[in-house]
Amino acid sequence: MKKIALLGSTGSVGKNTLEVVRQHRASFQIVALAAGSNIELLARQINEFQPELVSVGRPELVDELRQLTGSWRGEIVCGAEGLIQAASYPSANFVMTAIIGSIGVAPTLAAIKAGKTIGLANKETLVTAGHIVMETAKRHGTRIIPVDSEHSAIFQCLQGERRADVARIILTASGGSFRHLTRRELSHVTVDDALKHPNWNMGAKITVDSATMMNKGFEVIEARWLFDLAYDQIDCLLHYESVIHSMVEYKDGAVMAQLGTPDMKVPIQYALSYPQRMPLETEPLDLVRFGKLHFAEMDYERFPLLKLAYDCGRTGGTLPAVLNAANEVAVARFLRGEIPFLAIEQIVERVCAAHRVQADPDLEAILEADGWARREAENC
Amino acid sequence: MKKIALLGSTGSVGKNTLEVVRQHRASFQIVALAAGSNIELLARQINEFQPELVSVGRPELVDELRQLTGSWRGEIVCGAEGLIQAASYPSANFVMTAIIGSIGVAPTLAAIKAGKTIGLANKETLVTAGHIVMETAKRHGTRIIPVDSEHSAIFQCLQGERRADVARIILTASGGSFRHLTRRELSHVTVDDALKHPNWNMGAKITVDSATMMNKGFEVIEARWLFDLAYDQIDCLLHYESVIHSMVEYKDGAVMAQLGTPDMKVPIQYALSYPQRMPLETEPLDLVRFGKLHFAEMDYERFPLLKLAYDCGRTGGTLPAVLNAANEVAVARFLRGEIPFLAIEQIVERVCAAHRVQADPDLEAILEADGWARREAENC
Repeated sequence: MKKIALLGSTGSVGKNTLEVVRQHRASFQIVALAAGSNIELLARQINEFQPELVSVGRPELVDELRQLTGSWRGEIVCGAEGLIQAASYPSANFVMTAIIGSIGVAPTLAAIKAGKTIGLANKETLVTAGHIVMETAKRHGTRIIPVDSEHSAIFQCLQGERRADVARIILTASGGSFRHLTRRELSHVTVDDALKHPNWNMGAKITVDSATMMNKGFEVIEARWLFDLAYDQIDCLLHYESVIHSMVEYKDGAVMAQLGTPDMKVPIQYALSYPQRMPLETEPLDLVRFGKLHFAEMDYERFPLLKLAYDCGRTGGTLPAVLNAANEVAVARFLRGEIPFLAIEQIVERVCAAHRVQADPDLEAILEADGWARREAENC
Repeated sequence: MKKIALLGSTGSVGKNTLEVVRQHRASFQIVALAAGSNIELLARQINEFQPELVSVGRPELVDELRQLTGSWRGEIVCGAEGLIQAASYPSANFVMTAIIGSIGVAPTLAAIKAGKTIGLANKETLVTAGHIVMETAKRHGTRIIPVDSEHSAIFQCLQGERRADVARIILTASGGSFRHLTRRELSHVTVDDALKHPNWNMGAKITVDSATMMNKGFEVIEARWLFDLAYDQIDCLLHYESVIHSMVEYKDGAVMAQLGTPDMKVPIQYALSYPQRMPLETEPLDLVRFGKLHFAEMDYERFPLLKLAYDCGRTGGTLPAVLNAANEVAVARFLRGEIPFLAIEQIVERVCAAHRVQADPDLEAILEADGWARREAENC
């Protein structure tokens, strides 16, 4: 029985995780839930899954949540400390880290230290603190299973193979909401335009990150850590349909790929059922319906944030954390209507250029750089 | 060190096997070669690889071969008995069975009984005697690794997975030389037309079998035995570029695929290096150059021999052997210019319909049915 602590239960990955649990009540049980401020939804989840522990974003939400959850008698905690409690909750043996943003790093590290198997859906954990996270996981013998569709695909393509036989990995990218626009056309796009992702139904932040290709850049940095690769071994390929979720090329020229319909439940369930698979109610892949799959070279001039991600990854130290924090603020400003779409890139580039990189930082130094980058990006 | 007996060294798979051995002299050694009547090429192979034993097709070729191989002092054997000797040669630990036709069945069985690891490139072994071969391999603990690109792809997609988690496999088919022609247009095609395969450079017989889709039909029957599947779990998909070599769909909806350029050296080397991989000089897959990959539903009316193969496979007994033998004769007659292209189908269908099926046949009964079918097909 997988006893699951789900961090970020009201987000896109969180809701899909609960849908997977619904399909396999005999194998998966929710023992802890953590969410931010979507109290109505969290209350419904509590009433349905009856967890032992729940963490909410702020103290003032605790009473409201208690009222909404009727006869449920579990414990409610809150804030950053509450997240850590949920992440290291003793009766959980699996932690799904589906919180968006750098607030997911500390609880993920707590879960790793507690020896839970990790379903990693928080990108920032590896982007900002990859060297610490992988080292900590190694020390505690903790297994980290990626949930992001691209990394799950790579992870699946590596099963039964030797890491030494890998030549390179190829992350596929749909190109996001604006893939058919020129850079000139990009200057007028609106928030509503940005949120129409062609293939995946995801949250607002990650949908904007897909349109800027920043998301793919973060995936490159994550892949470097997850699979212990050099940046030269990580390539990106435009693939409009997102049917091939990613690929591994081996040194004999064979390429292994994982394909499927764009349904987050597949990698979520794979993380939960690994190394086995379980039946899942999902639309089967029908290549005949697609008829064609398209591929094109990645354009690093059209998508400068992807190139910047490689550069920041290669430099390392505190720079990837700065990249992430500046982007988080810039995207939030775009979503609030404060800045135009292309200003996201400008802000992120400017903040990264201004940063004095610290090599081999500890978590405190990373958080400090993160805070500095946020202030810079807010005032840029 | 893999010590290899190579049966069928002068054919397409044979020559590619030797090219792989050339690239890895420290890991692979040729200890036995077997070929039919292409004595000039066989002599050059002997002079280069210095095997301990060589088998030729007929006794009268022995002296000629001896003269062409100068100072080489290995043993020469011949005929059906010679093939068996090469297949069970004591110092070999790996037997590549790359002989075309049903004459490959007996030596493959001999190699299986001798406990050699088998690189299986002889389709007829599993098509005609799958139930005997798999049972014998199980009894002797012999590993059979497929060399055909489609089955190698499936085999690779199954690594690190549980067989119980497989929903179905999907064999891809380029459609062969005549994929753009209607059945009406097929009535005029020539031998030269048939031998122009769009993607793979193979022998004449298998190229014609690709054009009739009989080849895919044999692959369906082989897959049934190799991977212990029901025929309902084996699907075929038209995929013009032959870039996806085949796929496995798991019960969670995830599809694993193996891709690559059409180079037989990749599956040949994989069979030799399995479970590891080794570097190989081959053209890397460049999906950007393709731009698009095409998929279309298999058309069982356009390709009736594929449908017939499913039917014969489901019926089982001596019928798949009859299917194979009738096709072998019909293709030979087409290649000799005796019959038009569409008569291949007619002959095969007629012979299969006329056969009185024997259930659970032994090898003798299979060979008897094979002989009967050849006579029928010759006089049809």
